[in-house]
Amino acid sequence: MKELRFGVIGWGYWGPKIARNLDTLPQAMVTTVADNDAQRLAMLAVNQPWIKTATHVEDLFRSDVDAVVIATPVRTHYQLARAALLHNKHVLVEKPLTASIAQAEELIALAQERERVLMVGHTFEYNPAVNELRKLVQSGDLGKIYCFEAERVNLGLFRNDINVIWDLAPHDVSILLYLFGKKPEKIKVQAHAHVQSHIEDVAHLDLEFADGMNAHIHVSWLHPCKIRRVTVIGDARMVVYDDTNPAEMIKIYNKGADVHADPVVSYRYGAITIPHIDWIEPLRLECEDFANSIRIGVQPRAHGGIGLEVVRILAAAQDILKKQERQNAEVPV
Amino acid sequence: MKELRFGVIGWGYWGPKIARNLDTLPQAMVTTVADNDAQRLAMLAVNQPWIKTATHVEDLFRSDVDAVVIATPVRTHYQLARAALLHNKHVLVEKPLTASIAQAEELIALAQERERVLMVGHTFEYNPAVNELRKLVQSGDLGKIYCFEAERVNLGLFRNDINVIWDLAPHDVSILLYLFGKKPEKIKVQAHAHVQSHIEDVAHLDLEFADGMNAHIHVSWLHPCKIRRVTVIGDARMVVYDDTNPAEMIKIYNKGADVHADPVVSYRYGAITIPHIDWIEPLRLECEDFANSIRIGVQPRAHGGIGLEVVRILAAAQDILKKQERQNAEVPV
Repeated sequence: MKELRFGVIGWGYWGPKIARNLDTLPQAMVTTVADNDAQRLAMLAVNQPWIKTATHVEDLFRSDVDAVVIATPVRTHYQLARAALLHNKHVLVEKPLTASIAQAEELIALAQERERVLMVGHTFEYNPAVNELRKLVQSGDLGKIYCFEAERVNLGLFRNDINVIWDLAPHDVSILLYLFGKKPEKIKVQAHAHVQSHIEDVAHLDLEFADGMNAHIHVSWLHPCKIRRVTVIGDARMVVYDDTNPAEMIKIYNKGADVHADPVVSYRYGAITIPHIDWIEPLRLECEDFANSIRIGVQPRAHGGIGLEVVRILAAAQDILKKQERQNAEVPV
Repeated sequence: MKELRFGVIGWGYWGPKIARNLDTLPQAMVTTVADNDAQRLAMLAVNQPWIKTATHVEDLFRSDVDAVVIATPVRTHYQLARAALLHNKHVLVEKPLTASIAQAEELIALAQERERVLMVGHTFEYNPAVNELRKLVQSGDLGKIYCFEAERVNLGLFRNDINVIWDLAPHDVSILLYLFGKKPEKIKVQAHAHVQSHIEDVAHLDLEFADGMNAHIHVSWLHPCKIRRVTVIGDARMVVYDDTNPAEMIKIYNKGADVHADPVVSYRYGAITIPHIDWIEPLRLECEDFANSIRIGVQPRAHGGIGLEVVRILAAAQDILKKQERQNAEVPV
């Protein structure tokens, strides 16, 4: 098995985590790291002196790495991924894939043309709890699904280049698409900018599907409590996935409301089941999928097309916000 | 002090609770109960034989009661309250006051003309935890208020005459208006009917205020967990009021996000304070206020005008839903 050489662009919070996981894979290693912050690279040089560092990303592209991981702000994703593909590198881009639909489409076409892997860091698609939830949804055990609800709130971390929708909702949108494998028909948004002007810090997305299912995603940087919860409500069973409760991540509620002769509703109450989840670090599974896809020449689970679907929904939400702003601007004062 | 005689219309879940509290007041008693279900009245006659019962509400109106409590479905509120006022009775109507703005306005005018008390059963305005929260908001301790969030979800109880907005949101709307004493400028709604056709069982209301504050209210009959939570987020402090956690109903989080030179945000993390709350049953305080208002001839805290404000918001939400339905109906298939 050929040794895979990885380059990492962006040595902030997430880059070192990805590098650590890539290094644990068989026949794989991070050989080069690029960041425009020389101080961060100096620290790296002290701790892991065998890794080459580059303050100019071009040096990384021209190096012998087979694949590049891009862990930088969203606005830089497209340009860096495009350059990497043009240098015939396989690419894993942090979520969201790009800042626009056109950018994502171009990257996908370019990866296809160059026969390179293009992958997006939708870590939750590799999360064992999400996969347990997916099994429940796909098996039909939950019955007809009425709705999907996601809540991802906490104090901070505020970003100043993107709003809370682009920052936090990619997680929940990718979970949603992964669980159900279908696209929404309609989207509504309620969002507010409280702390920084013009950067929404609280948002609610409401997605409607052709079959009547709906999804509601609440994201916020402005909340006293850390909540990371997904609820899937079926007519047979309901499931809560609580990412902040490691011992009871998935709870299956055997309860529901039954309609007899509309409008007579009766209730079923049953046991709560907490399945055992074999835990493996999601990022490790994500890195494995990236390496395997490169070796075998297949699409990874979170391939570019999936990244595009998430960007489509984020962009639609953004369009609605812009339209609302224009409408408000036209109201006479 | 003159003995106050109360009549109760509707002997379902809530009527007996109100009667129990009225009976504990000094110089007050429930003398007559009306319900069109003779079986319920027969049970009452066995347990409290001193109370007169009436299957025809007219018999109650013609009795010697000074005041009437109406604990019946919303669609009957207006007609029953109107009849009671026309019989010169003081009236306490369960929430929401009426099913339309015009009905509420007519009742208020009639009560004024007849010099009778018109009160609405916004029990949460008498809740000691809500009053603690109000003190925090009004004292300025929370700083500038960014947002109010309310979540009131559980499995059931499904109603077939009104949707979840009219059933559950009156609580949170009345809490919102009581805490802040100001009216929203704009309202948005996302609502879905899953279990019964055309009766929304999941809804999100988003209210915007002139000063930039926003309120988000999530109500649902279709959720595996019982959540009854209000969060108030200020720039100085944040408060969570959890109605399902009696020992820690109010939690004050001394934390926040500070903007220095936009867009530089820093975070403050401090202690959590759980104030002691002297608990008195809210319904008891509500009944006391009703009796005192009758005796002294003043407006109760939850007077008709307050009831009207809540109905205004519910009616606005309903209008938006109807408009959305029409828009959908016009989409070609």
